[in-house]
Amino acid sequence: MIEEISVSYFPAFRETSLNDPVLIEGLPGIGQVGKLVAEYMIHVLGAKKVGEITSIYFPPQVILDETGLARLVRNELYLYRSGTRDILFLVGDHQSTSGEGHYLLADCYCGIAADAGARRIYTLGGFGVGHLVNEPRVLGAMNRPELRDEIEAAGVTLQRDDAGGAIIGAAGLMLALSAQRGLEAVCLMGETSGYIVDPMAAASVLAILSKLIDVPVDPTRLNDRASEMEKAIEGFVESEKLKDEELSYIG
Amino acid sequence: MIEEISVSYFPAFRETSLNDPVLIEGLPGIGQVGKLVAEYMIHVLGAKKVGEITSIYFPPQVILDETGLARLVRNELYLYRSGTRDILFLVGDHQSTSGEGHYLLADCYCGIAADAGARRIYTLGGFGVGHLVNEPRVLGAMNRPELRDEIEAAGVTLQRDDAGGAIIGAAGLMLALSAQRGLEAVCLMGETSGYIVDPMAAASVLAILSKLIDVPVDPTRLNDRASEMEKAIEGFVESEKLKDEELSYIG
Amino acid sequence: MIEEISVSYFPAFRETSLNDPVLIEGLPGIGQVGKLVAEYMIHVLGAKKVGEITSIYFPPQVILDETGLARLVRNELYLYRSGTRDILFLVGDHQSTSGEGHYLLADCYCGIAADAGARRIYTLGGFGVGHLVNEPRVLGAMNRPELRDEIEAAGVTLQRDDAGGAIIGAAGLMLALSAQRGLEAVCLMGETSGYIVDPMAAASVLAILSKLIDVPVDPTRLNDRASEMEKAIEGFVESEKLKDEELSYIG
Amino acid sequence: MIEEISVSYFPAFRETSLNDPVLIEGLPGIGQVGKLVAEYMIHVLGAKKVGEITSIYFPPQVILDETGLARLVRNELYLYRSGTRDILFLVGDHQSTSGEGHYLLADCYCGIAADAGARRIYTLGGFGVGHLVNEPRVLGAMNRPELRDEIEAAGVTLQRDDAGGAIIGAAGLMLALSAQRGLEAVCLMGETSGYIVDPMAAASVLAILSKLIDVPVDPTRLNDRASEMEKAIEGFVESEKLKDEELSYIG
Repeated sequence: MIEEISVSYFPAFRETSLNDPVLIEGLPGIGQVGKLVAEYMIHVLGAKKVGEITSIYFPPQVILDETGLARLVRNELYLYRSGTRDILFLVGDHQSTSGEGHYLLADCYCGIAADAGARRIYTLGGFGVGHLVNEPRVLGAMNRPELRDEIEAAGVTLQRDDAGGAIIGAAGLMLALSAQRGLEAVCLMGETSGYIVDPMAAASVLAILSKLIDVPVDPTRLNDRASEMEKAIEGFVESEKLKDEELSYIG
Repeated sequence: MIEEISVSYFPAFRETSLNDPVLIEGLPGIGQVGKLVAEYMIHVLGAKKVGEITSIYFPPQVILDETGLARLVRNELYLYRSGTRDILFLVGDHQSTSGEGHYLLADCYCGIAADAGARRIYTLGGFGVGHLVNEPRVLGAMNRPELRDEIEAAGVTLQRDDAGGAIIGAAGLMLALSAQRGLEAVCLMGETSGYIVDPMAAASVLAILSKLIDVPVDPTRLNDRASEMEKAIEGFVESEKLKDEELSYIG
Repeated sequence: MIEEISVSYFPAFRETSLNDPVLIEGLPGIGQVGKLVAEYMIHVLGAKKVGEITSIYFPPQVILDETGLARLVRNELYLYRSGTRDILFLVGDHQSTSGEGHYLLADCYCGIAADAGARRIYTLGGFGVGHLVNEPRVLGAMNRPELRDEIEAAGVTLQRDDAGGAIIGAAGLMLALSAQRGLEAVCLMGETSGYIVDPMAAASVLAILSKLIDVPVDPTRLNDRASEMEKAIEGFVESEKLKDEELSYIG
Repeated sequence: MIEEISVSYFPAFRETSLNDPVLIEGLPGIGQVGKLVAEYMIHVLGAKKVGEITSIYFPPQVILDETGLARLVRNELYLYRSGTRDILFLVGDHQSTSGEGHYLLADCYCGIAADAGARRIYTLGGFGVGHLVNEPRVLGAMNRPELRDEIEAAGVTLQRDDAGGAIIGAAGLMLALSAQRGLEAVCLMGETSGYIVDPMAAASVLAILSKLIDVPVDPTRLNDRASEMEKAIEGFVESEKLKDEELSYIG
């Protein structure tokens, strides 16, 4: 019989003893910011896949590769072993489709971090502001007041105009549910319009995350992608302005 | 593994033997009337927090304070100890997002009251009438006919034009589910438009509740807030009337 | 802890040995036809309440009487004991709010019938046709082919233009789920527009049901109500025709 | 008490030892393509019904035949025994109404295939393209790379423009969930507009499926139905063109 949530680790991983690990969550969300950052890091650092999560709370579908090979919707775990510390990445196709599933899955993810011996979790996301952002700030949230100084020193904006605001889904729930397991957790959110997949917000988040975990990550290709998008947007804005001028001229 | 509903009491509370306690429920609802009354009482009486309730039936999100500290959506218990009787307050961020969750949570709340030794529950809410109300009445409901005389004597309106009407959510379900545990329960609903957070309706409810539980609560600041809102609304209505007159003049 | 579905019988009923009982279901539905018939029969025959069903699958609310006394949304069981046979009525406020709840509740209702020793169930409803019906037929459905002759002989229309059509909710599910318990079941559906509470359809159903269970039920007051509504509708149709004529005259 | 999912086999089937069986799933879906193919094969091959599946995750209703006989919404199993191999067909009224139900039912179907000793499953469906298709291709998906050569040799298109695309419901989930039980699975999807029940897409799927399972199926009547629909559509398209010409003439 199928389980509500199934976590499977690759055999080699089960025998691995991790070195001061952190877990970085980058599941789909606003502007796909967290997903961009985590998948970019996996790619650049050459992290290896070590496990998978499937669940009846994910959308009821399979995903196909370019040759028609099908697999369940899933979340995935990747491991990067630097000399000094290990990083577990949590990425994937989808989040839960139900409210209850969100809680159960986020608690499962925190259990994965605890079982791996992690003392800290980073959850990544976008902070939708509804308009284009030139120099996206990185807003932060955490599950312990003691983390403030360290986070602010890394360049994260903690003072909020929206006290009482909420973080929906895994990036938020993992902050609170990991506290119940004695783990530290920090959420980094890049400011983004929320309308497009946003590499600029992702580049801002990456710069700060890299500093916080003290693991260098070459940002060149993400910055390149962000620059390209920036130019494309500038070009679009210019052409809109020209249209406006033409229209005023005609008017 | 996460529980469907989790109730945690502060250690000191567990050892407390309460003196003739009542439970007052003021969760979010129509016009936020119940929430306003209960939170105002907690503030003015200086009630102390004694416990928390979290649940997978609450919205799947965390709530941030002004420095980015995150916590689960939750309901909270506060205790006020007068010389003569103790009051437990149930307040919080949200109610359930599902129908089944509403039943399970309301039953849990009644269990909290029963475990604390309470013989009576007050649930508070707004009664939406769809238009501005000058002198909001307090409508009542109860779970035992014997309670009528006492409630009416306190100024509650029990005669209803809407027999067969319903009270949705915790304020309603707790009336009926507490009866199954042998508890008395009274619901007090301040008439409100339903469009705005309504301190006028809250002030009406507070006056009657204070009388019923025989615990004096200084209403000054709530009345002040209600007066301010009353003036603001009068000003708005006047300016709308002026506009109407101008329009008739033009027309 | 609250049960998903709770059935409670009055003590006297538990000791009652029923005489060849049938169960008649008349829960809310299209045109409230089933509800009208069952509640009318309970009233005219003087059936006595013998039990209640509550469930977390009902809407999460309480219902108030004219003095503010609150009770859970519920379904109710009534018993009528004629000289020759006993009738259990199942009526109530609401049906389930979820698909799964519909199945679980309908199965519970069939269990009630089986426990009472009933060999047959009648489920009542409306058959929505989307337009006013002058002489509503009673359409039928059953869970065994052997029942056809008896039902047709009583005046029920079984030949259907809509093979493959469906009956949604308790009136339908009880037909099929009672078959699994070895019970006979017949559904009687009065043709109705579906737009209004329809005593005309109810009167048609009552006439045939009374014949089938061989228990006379004085239809006078239901027929009176149907006649009144018939006249009201005729008056409305006439006035609409007049308007049309006036409009043609103008046009 | 009703089960969440109930599978019942006819007694004779339980004693049957199957000969190299495959399971073919043809439940309702896009263009009803899978349903058309599977039900056509059952009809032409004279497969016999051997079992039924009911579930609280199906819509809460009963389905009537032309005489008013009611039955639960269900899925059905049919068996065809050729000289060389046996085929189990899975067809039915509906798929699940909830996401979780989709997973639980699809896993149940894979369990049925495994229990029957099948080594391979074929799931059938339509591939909606949003416009009329003249010569519908059959797109494929599978749960093991080793199956590619065999499938392509049979005429299935595997190269996809929509890598990352999804197959929703049983036809998709059974691919992935059967892999967990060590079964091979292939999904065949006929290109279809998605707007109409599409015998043309079904005929394309049938031709390839018949080849893959090495069981000849006379396609005459399905092809006839496809030709009729093709002519009807051509006629419709012509008449639309004429209208366009008239309109251009007028314009």
